[in-house]
Amino acid sequence: MFRILHVGLGPLGQKIISDLYARDLGEVVAAVDNAGEFQGRTVSDLVPQSGAPVPIQRTFESISDWSAFDAAIVTTSSDLARCAPTFRELLARGMNVVSTCEELCWPWLRHEKLAQELDALAKKHGGRLLGTGVNPGFLMDTFAVAATAISRSVRSVEVRRFQDASTRRIPFQKKIGVGLDDAQFAAQVKAGTLRHVGLGESLHFLAQQFGWRVERWEESIEPIKTDRDLDSVLGPVKQGKACGVRQQARGWSEGRIVITLEFRAALGLADPHDRVIVQGEPPIDLVWKGGVQGDIATSAIVLNTIAPLRAAAPGLHTMATIPLVGFAPGCKTVGAGV
Amino acid sequence: MFRILHVGLGPLGQKIISDLYARDLGEVVAAVDNAGEFQGRTVSDLVPQSGAPVPIQRTFESISDWSAFDAAIVTTSSDLARCAPTFRELLARGMNVVSTCEELCWPWLRHEKLAQELDALAKKHGGRLLGTGVNPGFLMDTFAVAATAISRSVRSVEVRRFQDASTRRIPFQKKIGVGLDDAQFAAQVKAGTLRHVGLGESLHFLAQQFGWRVERWEESIEPIKTDRDLDSVLGPVKQGKACGVRQQARGWSEGRIVITLEFRAALGLADPHDRVIVQGEPPIDLVWKGGVQGDIATSAIVLNTIAPLRAAAPGLHTMATIPLVGFAPGCKTVGAGV
Repeated sequence: MFRILHVGLGPLGQKIISDLYARDLGEVVAAVDNAGEFQGRTVSDLVPQSGAPVPIQRTFESISDWSAFDAAIVTTSSDLARCAPTFRELLARGMNVVSTCEELCWPWLRHEKLAQELDALAKKHGGRLLGTGVNPGFLMDTFAVAATAISRSVRSVEVRRFQDASTRRIPFQKKIGVGLDDAQFAAQVKAGTLRHVGLGESLHFLAQQFGWRVERWEESIEPIKTDRDLDSVLGPVKQGKACGVRQQARGWSEGRIVITLEFRAALGLADPHDRVIVQGEPPIDLVWKGGVQGDIATSAIVLNTIAPLRAAAPGLHTMATIPLVGFAPGCKTVGAGV
Repeated sequence: MFRILHVGLGPLGQKIISDLYARDLGEVVAAVDNAGEFQGRTVSDLVPQSGAPVPIQRTFESISDWSAFDAAIVTTSSDLARCAPTFRELLARGMNVVSTCEELCWPWLRHEKLAQELDALAKKHGGRLLGTGVNPGFLMDTFAVAATAISRSVRSVEVRRFQDASTRRIPFQKKIGVGLDDAQFAAQVKAGTLRHVGLGESLHFLAQQFGWRVERWEESIEPIKTDRDLDSVLGPVKQGKACGVRQQARGWSEGRIVITLEFRAALGLADPHDRVIVQGEPPIDLVWKGGVQGDIATSAIVLNTIAPLRAAAPGLHTMATIPLVGFAPGCKTVGAGV
């Protein structure tokens, strides 16, 4: 049973808390979110099945006993700089912190100094910090590396995540630009509201594991347009409008493309799947039939990493530096006991 | 560059040494094998491309400086009891030991006391011990667990390894019973020369990770018979004779089958592949198209685990307790440097 300090009570945070209880993995002992909408409310107001009458605090000030927690879960922002004050507060108390902050999956890409600071802080106080998620955090990086455990050589790696957005939540469909025309799509890309965050982090994670120095990398994003009129939960989508997004990242080493990551999500996308292709010995062609449903998976992997993170040495971690992450059985399950 | 003490100079040991040099991962500093055929010979006699004029010793007695090694690789036997004297010698010197001993992949199944002893010995002297391989060690256990990092629940798991033996080495074809009639097949099963070792170890590894108490488990083995006359590198195989083997293990928990492992290897087997199927949320159906070639993979994973094992705390390890194992780049490769 993990005693959790949860920071960030938005939809993803609520989903994780719901799963924490449903899976019998632990309980929320304290909750923090500075959004005005949550003040005066409790965790059980937001997640009734938790039955946790824990007040949602605006800051960490009211927490007096930091030994009351086994881990903190932080689901606030994709942006590491925005999360940093929270991480500093937690690491200064020697906490074990798992976060869905996408940039934290490979923090050296965009925040090298901050990464060094957080690592030093964690080591000083005996805490641990890890960024994870389904993507970045797993499908396009950790999992691809795990597949190469049996590799004698790796010349290049390509990962594809092709999703049918029809089955996903409305916020996801909005995020991939459903219904937009070219100008609207371009405006949202520019505003940063449409982009999938994390391809760069996954790319650099892979490069580091495979020993490649990234000489150059680039990211592209474009709409996938419907060739017929569609109905969607967001309303009708006319022929020629966006029904989704295609985003790609490519990385060069020694003058050639060694990493290709491609993310597609669109309404009615045929043959959704995740796939890892490695040119090397042996060649690898690994397919998740039907693909991995992201809403379940992100919450799951956050909870599944708590125990492996706690088993690692203090410091700033990645999914490559902690013991094997797999499904974590709940407490009602009787372990085989080794 | 790893400085390696290699123990066991048979075909697999030679392959690993060959790859160690080809991949520029390190060098063999000392070699031990008590087989008479190797006495008076050097590593480079067996593996010319190593260029290592290292004499093959019969025992560890001639080794005076144990700090000369970063790790030991042991490729002697599938049987943990037979390997134990070697492991004791190495762990008493605080060595990091990776072995292809199949029973070591989950030693608590058949050798619980020995496992405790080796763990204590490793911890006392600051050494580490790990059993690995492509199977057991990866495809039917570690990899299946890794896939469930994104699982909210796991109700059952099934792993299939279906191989076309036509492309494999002669010893492999002999080992799977090619050309045998029923009586010969049964005799070889009884003698223990035909059985794939490790399904039980993989099964218990999975059960432990998923929190299942194994109430009962069983293993079955039967010939796959050819429905027509075949040619093989072992000579003609008449219709009705064995062209391979089908071996299955099943494990029960709370009255139902929760783990099914199936190993098939036969000449001309159609659609070879490896596959992991998980009943749970989300459902997982993960396919290695064409399957994983075992000869390359076993050598590769042994070399790929050295660095993660060295990064773990002292003790007896499994593939679940060390950091992520992926392709290990050689020293000529320039790392991204974090």
